[in-house]
Amino acid sequence: MTQRYKMTVAYDGTHYAGWQVQPGERTIQSELERAAHQISGEIVRIHCSGRTDSGVHARAQVTHFDLDAPLETRRLARGLNALLDSDIRVTSLTGAAPDFDARRSATGKQYRYFLWDGAVLPPHVRLYRTHVLKRLELEAMQDAAGRLMGRNDFSAFAANPNREVPSTTRTLSQLQVSRKGHEVTIVAESEGFLYKMVRSLAGFLIRVGEGEVSPEAAGAILDSRERTARVPTAPPQGLFLWKVFY
Amino acid sequence: MTQRYKMTVAYDGTHYAGWQVQPGERTIQSELERAAHQISGEIVRIHCSGRTDSGVHARAQVTHFDLDAPLETRRLARGLNALLDSDIRVTSLTGAAPDFDARRSATGKQYRYFLWDGAVLPPHVRLYRTHVLKRLELEAMQDAAGRLMGRNDFSAFAANPNREVPSTTRTLSQLQVSRKGHEVTIVAESEGFLYKMVRSLAGFLIRVGEGEVSPEAAGAILDSRERTARVPTAPPQGLFLWKVFY
Repeated sequence: MTQRYKMTVAYDGTHYAGWQVQPGERTIQSELERAAHQISGEIVRIHCSGRTDSGVHARAQVTHFDLDAPLETRRLARGLNALLDSDIRVTSLTGAAPDFDARRSATGKQYRYFLWDGAVLPPHVRLYRTHVLKRLELEAMQDAAGRLMGRNDFSAFAANPNREVPSTTRTLSQLQVSRKGHEVTIVAESEGFLYKMVRSLAGFLIRVGEGEVSPEAAGAILDSRERTARVPTAPPQGLFLWKVFY
Repeated sequence: MTQRYKMTVAYDGTHYAGWQVQPGERTIQSELERAAHQISGEIVRIHCSGRTDSGVHARAQVTHFDLDAPLETRRLARGLNALLDSDIRVTSLTGAAPDFDARRSATGKQYRYFLWDGAVLPPHVRLYRTHVLKRLELEAMQDAAGRLMGRNDFSAFAANPNREVPSTTRTLSQLQVSRKGHEVTIVAESEGFLYKMVRSLAGFLIRVGEGEVSPEAAGAILDSRERTARVPTAPPQGLFLWKVFY
């Protein structure tokens, strides 16, 4: 009797070519599937709430998978963690209803993007922060963020926006910028994000914080529905998939 | 005209064989001396406040060195950071009096040892925390720490204590244990520490926190002046040289 599982994983994406299985590459999905196969003897396909790109981190990525011969969840979680490298950890594992789907059942997601605007990037956070060489103007970033929130067509803030999705309209329910010392954090929440949308929003907000673009530009860029060089893609190492809502 | 410099550096010790130059090994000292040579063209010897062992980190290690042909400190610091890998950073660099000595002029040091006692060690702190599988009893650790503070012969809490030093008596002016969620932090301050003293204190406090030794044992172990298996050496990755006082 097939059993479905809901599994939450945290990972340091530094040494991985992203989530998705790719021939010849070390990915989060391939590591998890290999470990699940070793424990269960079954060919296990692990599905996530949303793929993360190369170098992007997750505090709480949610996944689902099935086993034909069910295993006890605590032993399964411990076994997976024993087989995985310490940069991927199963943080929670429970049985789930047969129709639970990590991606389709999700009602929203929260990402966080971490910046460091001090002159020197401390060695112990270097893999998890994007270093910005100019002191960021927080109020300008907050002003711009406010203009991006709400229900909008985010074509101008996505890469290849029309590749897969029928619509590029999304509700950005939260986009907040805060500072603690030299650490500037962007929190973005939506019922769904377009491809590279968070890194595009972060890239634009960095330019605003550096004083290179005015916050007022946000509206015109949204209206243009065109991705141009005005919106750079911020580097992957500052980005964390923080939470998935169900 | 020779100029002396005082330089503070932060480093992630994960990929280094400690501070001290060793043939065939990548060390913090050898990396800094190589970079200083590249910039100045001089053979530069860099002296630290106290060597750190393989895998130990520093938030603020203090060093001194001399240049026969002085360079402007801001350019020197930037140049060093441009040449060094991102896991070593110069955080401050100033001219110093000719008699300033990073080790001899120091009046005290603070180390911090970081533990994690949750079931799963989060990937993003895995290189900077020691994972303890049992929930630590904080009050017992605090009780034991209180018994170790003050002026004592710390032979029982050091490795090869008599190898180099004329006396093994030290004043441990601070030894505090605190908790924030699953993170337990030990802060140790002294005018000077014996070899592997902080990791020995941490190793003993972990055993107390795990309930394997009673806090009262601290006095008898101090009195024995003998290093035995009762005091294990805690692993290097939890240890940070935090501050040097002058």
